[in-house]
Amino acid sequence: MNINNILVAGNYEQQFQEQLPQEVMKHFRFVTLDKITEEDLRWADAYVGSKPSDHFHPSQFKWVHSFNAGVNNYLDGIDGWFETNIILTRTVCSFGERISEYCLSYVLRDLQFQDYFAEKQMEKIWEPKTPKMVKNETFVIFGTGEIGQKVAETFSFFGADVYGVSKSGTKKSFFKEVVQSSNAESVLNKANWIISTLPYTKETNKLFDRKMFSYMNDVGFINVGRGSTVDEAALIEALNDGNVRSAVLDVTSIEPLPENSKLWERNDVKLTPHISAVTEISEAITCFLQTFQNLKNEMPLMNRVDITKGY
Amino acid sequence: MNINNILVAGNYEQQFQEQLPQEVMKHFRFVTLDKITEEDLRWADAYVGSKPSDHFHPSQFKWVHSFNAGVNNYLDGIDGWFETNIILTRTVCSFGERISEYCLSYVLRDLQFQDYFAEKQMEKIWEPKTPKMVKNETFVIFGTGEIGQKVAETFSFFGADVYGVSKSGTKKSFFKEVVQSSNAESVLNKANWIISTLPYTKETNKLFDRKMFSYMNDVGFINVGRGSTVDEAALIEALNDGNVRSAVLDVTSIEPLPENSKLWERNDVKLTPHISAVTEISEAITCFLQTFQNLKNEMPLMNRVDITKGY
Repeated sequence: MNINNILVAGNYEQQFQEQLPQEVMKHFRFVTLDKITEEDLRWADAYVGSKPSDHFHPSQFKWVHSFNAGVNNYLDGIDGWFETNIILTRTVCSFGERISEYCLSYVLRDLQFQDYFAEKQMEKIWEPKTPKMVKNETFVIFGTGEIGQKVAETFSFFGADVYGVSKSGTKKSFFKEVVQSSNAESVLNKANWIISTLPYTKETNKLFDRKMFSYMNDVGFINVGRGSTVDEAALIEALNDGNVRSAVLDVTSIEPLPENSKLWERNDVKLTPHISAVTEISEAITCFLQTFQNLKNEMPLMNRVDITKGY
Repeated sequence: MNINNILVAGNYEQQFQEQLPQEVMKHFRFVTLDKITEEDLRWADAYVGSKPSDHFHPSQFKWVHSFNAGVNNYLDGIDGWFETNIILTRTVCSFGERISEYCLSYVLRDLQFQDYFAEKQMEKIWEPKTPKMVKNETFVIFGTGEIGQKVAETFSFFGADVYGVSKSGTKKSFFKEVVQSSNAESVLNKANWIISTLPYTKETNKLFDRKMFSYMNDVGFINVGRGSTVDEAALIEALNDGNVRSAVLDVTSIEPLPENSKLWERNDVKLTPHISAVTEISEAITCFLQTFQNLKNEMPLMNRVDITKGY
């Protein structure tokens, strides 16, 4: 594909310069989101950034590349994606690794009884207790795409049993078994840990509702996907009822989480501000450039979004 | 090797029964440590347990198997090991995995800024900060035996650079480079993390002294070996001077750590009561039985102790 004019929404000129030869740079315009004009949009045949600018319309471009892993910013409230042959790609790169390390850090903190030993240290009490091992735990991962697979690979490395739940139920590497969402119950009853990597779509909206939580028993629930996949009132009930033993939430249905949310004050909830898959700009640029190369050379695109699915 | 009479120091009869056929059980005697008689010792040609009983002498046995990974309990203060052809073996099994998960849990807690986010949650503040990734960290592991290698394999899986320090400096798998202790300085200056898996021997006694710490710069120091390999006063100085940024100690030179130790109250020290490589008895028995099989079939012994080295 021939791409001549690339509009980058954001002041990233210097960072691109570090990675690109001068003769390629002439194809780029760097404009901060609020300064993008209709002329810029007409000039460009490709648009790159975290979100669309005012007056953005898919039909204007051959290619749109999201600096995020999720593409809600582009798909929500913007029509016209289906009427064009536009290619929409997203940043993947090390999201899988980042999210795996995030999940593993909280799983290990729990299995190693870190909070227990911190308390004992405060009391100056030497009281041994044998940590649990990852290999004796069973994980169910919602979402078996690139990120879910990397998480599965990581826990498999430590010898854990990992099951997957996806729309299609198609078997993927590193999963012992993958079932369809409608059949999630059959694996949830074996789980010690539930990890959701799900994107936000019509189908995943509040997928974790009272019924879904009722299939769980004393689990650790980790959400590194999107906050709106969880009915937060149902999660709080599940915590109170013991279906969920503790929750680690990197995403919430409203972000930043409102000050009056009950989630803030719970000891059985660990909150982080949507940081498990932050992209450092240099890395996002590397991913963009790889995608650009693949497009030019008509190579397969691992990170193309299927607009009907939304990821 | 022909072993007929095995004395097990401890009340483990039931646990052995679960793993052994009845006809093999007749070769065993189970006696708690304080009840072992000189007759028991004369009867036995093999001794199994965490520590020697009164009147224990190496010349009495063909084989001694330690239920621990370390064999200090057997070698310290007991002479006669060199005058016999006795085989001394130790429990290895999942020590490597256990210690790897322990180390990784504290490394990830730090890289993921878990303490920072916990504080922000208390204040109900949503303030993103990008976690660091394991692959951008450099590790130096003291001890490149079975445990050190497993730790190296684990951090290598996440893409980290791992260097080793050992007595011989012999290259081992999963290490980018292994240097001799006398040359540790050459790798310590690149390290973000130092992990010691060293056993206690004459040579490792207070190996981590003021001079060794002076080669470090703002590192995380993790000791999962033996407490007496560290000069604790020098460690405290190194923490005060910034050579060591934080320490995670699973072992201390006196255990339990005395109440008046300055280590208890430091925020930059995380203490755990020697739990990183606890053996669950069923696992120790499995390891013992494997060793027993290998001995009978004259197969190589991975867990035989080199008495001149002490591990």
